[in-house]
Amino acid sequence: MIRSSAGPSVAWKLRPAAASDSDSIWTIFKAVVARGDTYVFAPDISRDEALAYWLHPSARCYVAEREGVVLGTYVLKPNQPGLGAHVANAAFMVAPTTQGSGLGRVMAEHCLAEARRLGFRAMQFNFVVSTNERAIRLWRTMGFEVVGTLPGAFKHTEKGYVDAYVMFRSLAGDVSADRRTCS
Amino acid sequence: MIRSSAGPSVAWKLRPAAASDSDSIWTIFKAVVARGDTYVFAPDISRDEALAYWLHPSARCYVAEREGVVLGTYVLKPNQPGLGAHVANAAFMVAPTTQGSGLGRVMAEHCLAEARRLGFRAMQFNFVVSTNERAIRLWRTMGFEVVGTLPGAFKHTEKGYVDAYVMFRSLAGDVSADRRTCS
Repeated sequence: MIRSSAGPSVAWKLRPAAASDSDSIWTIFKAVVARGDTYVFAPDISRDEALAYWLHPSARCYVAEREGVVLGTYVLKPNQPGLGAHVANAAFMVAPTTQGSGLGRVMAEHCLAEARRLGFRAMQFNFVVSTNERAIRLWRTMGFEVVGTLPGAFKHTEKGYVDAYVMFRSLAGDVSADRRTCS
Repeated sequence: MIRSSAGPSVAWKLRPAAASDSDSIWTIFKAVVARGDTYVFAPDISRDEALAYWLHPSARCYVAEREGVVLGTYVLKPNQPGLGAHVANAAFMVAPTTQGSGLGRVMAEHCLAEARRLGFRAMQFNFVVSTNERAIRLWRTMGFEVVGTLPGAFKHTEKGYVDAYVMFRSLAGDVSADRRTCS
């Protein structure tokens, strides 16, 4: 069990997704993309398309549950094949009713630990919408930096064309830091 | 027929790829990725994997031929789904024996024209290896800028971990320029 910064009363269980989580994942996915403000997926994406992406065999999918209810999910995969496969990519979704609970950070910490365990050297987010200030603030506090700006690359449902950021952090440095702590 | 800057004796025919081009495309693909210096694909990628990527239904594939021999190929597709689908992505491969002939530029000009015709507002390259100076020089002369740097994101066969660039150019501005020329 992982306790988030929101307080000791909030305990999350993170685990690999099972086939039986499909309904929960789709409920979260649908609610998040329907707003058209953070993800590129078409706001009216079908369940099949969404699950084909999120549960793709090349990605590891995890869910976060509290009292048996799945309220968040993330995927972790190589960002590129072959000679770029040492850099991880990840994507996170939290049920809208659960936002602000600290679950994003809980999942991100779990994800970074998993990425290190799997031997990735870095993590990259390819498309962080520039108006998604909460996410950007979170990623910065977790060691990610904006390493690229894609002009007008996101068609925000309310704001029109806005920039998207590429964010990146090394994991190799942390491994050394961990080692130093242990020595 | 398109004449490249290499001289009037070099005339290229560019056309959409047909199923019968698979052998030619694989020959080029294999030779390019075997060097492990410009593309992330595993240098020993299989023919099936390579063609599944290059001839994916979501991409338009074109070939460039001279005297009936296919010596170059490129793919053009949306870089993201849904709310990011207004930005194009493209990738180009030239048979190693043909490099330096100007075919890269010929294909790139054709590709930009196709992207405009299809209504894309911009074009993005997600992963230009920083040591691929010839390509970077070409993209710069064609209006692309480096908008992001991915630290150590490419494992170069000879040089080890080197940076990769994200390059981007607007197509919207050009459309206005075209319109002004016509008015």
